[in-house]
Amino acid sequence: MRVGVLGTGRVGRAIAARLAELGHEVVVGTRDPTATMTRTEPDGMGNPPFRTWAEAHPQVRGGSFADAAAASEVIVNATSGAGSLPSLTAAGEDNLAGKVLLDIANPLDFSAGMPPTLLVKDTDSLGEQIQRAFPQAKVVKTLNTMNALVMVHPDRVPGDHSVFVAGDDANAKQTVMNLLHGFGWSADNIVDLGGIRSARGVEMYLPLWLSLRQALGTGDFNINVVRA
Amino acid sequence: MRVGVLGTGRVGRAIAARLAELGHEVVVGTRDPTATMTRTEPDGMGNPPFRTWAEAHPQVRGGSFADAAAASEVIVNATSGAGSLPSLTAAGEDNLAGKVLLDIANPLDFSAGMPPTLLVKDTDSLGEQIQRAFPQAKVVKTLNTMNALVMVHPDRVPGDHSVFVAGDDANAKQTVMNLLHGFGWSADNIVDLGGIRSARGVEMYLPLWLSLRQALGTGDFNINVVRA
Repeated sequence: MRVGVLGTGRVGRAIAARLAELGHEVVVGTRDPTATMTRTEPDGMGNPPFRTWAEAHPQVRGGSFADAAAASEVIVNATSGAGSLPSLTAAGEDNLAGKVLLDIANPLDFSAGMPPTLLVKDTDSLGEQIQRAFPQAKVVKTLNTMNALVMVHPDRVPGDHSVFVAGDDANAKQTVMNLLHGFGWSADNIVDLGGIRSARGVEMYLPLWLSLRQALGTGDFNINVVRA
Repeated sequence: MRVGVLGTGRVGRAIAARLAELGHEVVVGTRDPTATMTRTEPDGMGNPPFRTWAEAHPQVRGGSFADAAAASEVIVNATSGAGSLPSLTAAGEDNLAGKVLLDIANPLDFSAGMPPTLLVKDTDSLGEQIQRAFPQAKVVKTLNTMNALVMVHPDRVPGDHSVFVAGDDANAKQTVMNLLHGFGWSADNIVDLGGIRSARGVEMYLPLWLSLRQALGTGDFNINVVRA
């Protein structure tokens, strides 16, 4: 498929590299492509300059948010929580209309230091905000409950463990589940939570994820839903 | 041990019955014991009248919140989220001082219907509120991430799955872990999240738990933390 990945951080890079490896046509979008490609310092999260990554992944094209969205059937939101709505606005409502919008972003607010708080919660979610802002896009929330390496290589964590999907459009969820299968997620380990409203639960899981990362001393873990 | 269980709902009954079965001396506390024992209708959550349960569990004593707390080394808060601070106040600060306070309550607000929202979240938690209100009690948050039957009979759910503990006092956490072992939780499946601040994560997990219950069509499930 043609997939536009918005965001050049750890998550965007992991998703884009894995999709390209699996034979998809990938365009990575960023706010200011020239600035992104000329930067020679690590980014704000300590990732190496994007240019280094891009040179190692010549099969991935780069461009603006709008370039990535216009070129693609599926758009992946891998921007920050605070940056999601502005980035998607820059991608262009028309470029998102009718398309699958796979939303991985977590609405974390790091402005008061660690641990982060949530920009939206409880009676609303970022997934729902995005769906409301872009009603013609088919938003599917998924993959936000684990670190980037586990998202695209679930076999890093042994045995069964779960990935959640939430969205209002059944066909869009099926498209996303097919991409998840490609990453290595078995059908039994994909939990369909229902409509996009269920984004609340998976976003509000983040404080527990952060506690677990601290307690376990690693982000290389996931949770498995076990039924009686 | 001598354990006071505050609350006569589904969770209080399950915990009290299991503790008594395991040979602990249990007093169940309620706001108004006479009213609780004379009621012949199901309670607000559809549970059979407490009197019926009490007659089937003659080894469990009943009393006021203060009776239950005064008689006990460990106090279990199995009241509702909204009722927790008033119930603990009725139990009496002096009756809680120096004791282990095992807190299972979830700060759920059902006043606007289903799904409930959270009365406290993100930058605070009910566990922390209780610890601040009763600084001489040793609050340990645990068991709030699953239904009552799974709490006390973890073997209802097959294989490995996790229970979390959070609290500032290491000895109190050890006492709680010993009680959990008695219920059937293996040491490997008890995840120590650190201080009581981590109550935020386990309380904010509830919206995901509620989504999962709806998606799975049962509350008989739990999550297992799987490490790479």
